[in-house]
Amino acid sequence: MRPNKQKFKMRQILSEKRLKLPDSRADTLRKYPTIIWLTGLSGSGKTSIANALEAMLTADGLHSVVLDGDTLRIGLNSDLGFTAADRTENARRTAEVARMMAKAGLITIVALISPMRADRALARKIAGEVRFFEVFIDASLAQCEARDVKGLYALARAGSIKQFTGISAPYEPPMDPDLILRTADWTVSDSAMHLKTEVLRPTSLQ
Amino acid sequence: MRPNKQKFKMRQILSEKRLKLPDSRADTLRKYPTIIWLTGLSGSGKTSIANALEAMLTADGLHSVVLDGDTLRIGLNSDLGFTAADRTENARRTAEVARMMAKAGLITIVALISPMRADRALARKIAGEVRFFEVFIDASLAQCEARDVKGLYALARAGSIKQFTGISAPYEPPMDPDLILRTADWTVSDSAMHLKTEVLRPTSLQ
Repeated sequence: MRPNKQKFKMRQILSEKRLKLPDSRADTLRKYPTIIWLTGLSGSGKTSIANALEAMLTADGLHSVVLDGDTLRIGLNSDLGFTAADRTENARRTAEVARMMAKAGLITIVALISPMRADRALARKIAGEVRFFEVFIDASLAQCEARDVKGLYALARAGSIKQFTGISAPYEPPMDPDLILRTADWTVSDSAMHLKTEVLRPTSLQ
Repeated sequence: MRPNKQKFKMRQILSEKRLKLPDSRADTLRKYPTIIWLTGLSGSGKTSIANALEAMLTADGLHSVVLDGDTLRIGLNSDLGFTAADRTENARRTAEVARMMAKAGLITIVALISPMRADRALARKIAGEVRFFEVFIDASLAQCEARDVKGLYALARAGSIKQFTGISAPYEPPMDPDLILRTADWTVSDSAMHLKTEVLRPTSLQ
């Protein structure tokens, strides 16, 4: 589903009031354990959006947490590499932790390249009764490579990093994500605000 | 450190008021990310005490979570067996998740046999700057086997379960735990209350 720009603008205008979350609204959300799963290329903006969303939710008195792929690779997933099997295990463990955190009452925001459809499907399956909101952080390879915030694309092109998503390893865009955020068109703040609106939308909570 | 029974009784009398946790007290605790790590034989009472403590903390408006070894083996650690290496990995992953949860603001209660001193030392190391409160759930093998709540000891004695802690795999009691709970002498509720008092004691928060 592509976001409808006109609807989005209307929502942005409405959001001033709506996003203040009266208590009853926040209470409702607390009853819906939620995993917000951001997938996209390296450098597409997943972590920035996740952190911005967490800050907005915190400001609303909602308790959230970010599970970031890079950070997980220092800790829980430090024993895993970048083979297909290891990426699957990476997604599996992340989904298991996300499920536990969501069930403990945290709105759980995952920022993980998670390039394969099958791995994301596994994550959704692991979430079980926990709401799983899949968000495609849609930036083209050219855009991500042009930014190259971490300098990884240059290293991947030079062959210094193997199995790099988009260069020497595949990325399968979601077929039917719950939301698409085109980060080339929007600021981080706008993207996070739009995401928040969509996640908190009453109809999406049903 | 063995709990001093007389001090404990005094604390129990005082606790009526103290454990109601005025806001400032709860706020203080929220500033101290904490992992409460319960170690002990199968059937010693880890899970019961963890759940009772969680209920007490919730009643005080404190946000906590239980990471239970049995539950983890269905999910995150479902790929692990009971070899020494797998038990180490079990403890490592549990500690990594506990650290993330504690840093996200949850009082994190771990109920894990974690039989080896080295594995518990690794867990403490992983906790890093997060407070790590090690609790020995002290019930003798004879007591646990006499209860045999899950029927596992009978299976282990019959050889149907291999590498069973206390029967066919070692258990190393903590040398210097932060607290010892003798579950043969105390009810679950008393144990949990004592644990809560110790964990929340101002001096232990320094």
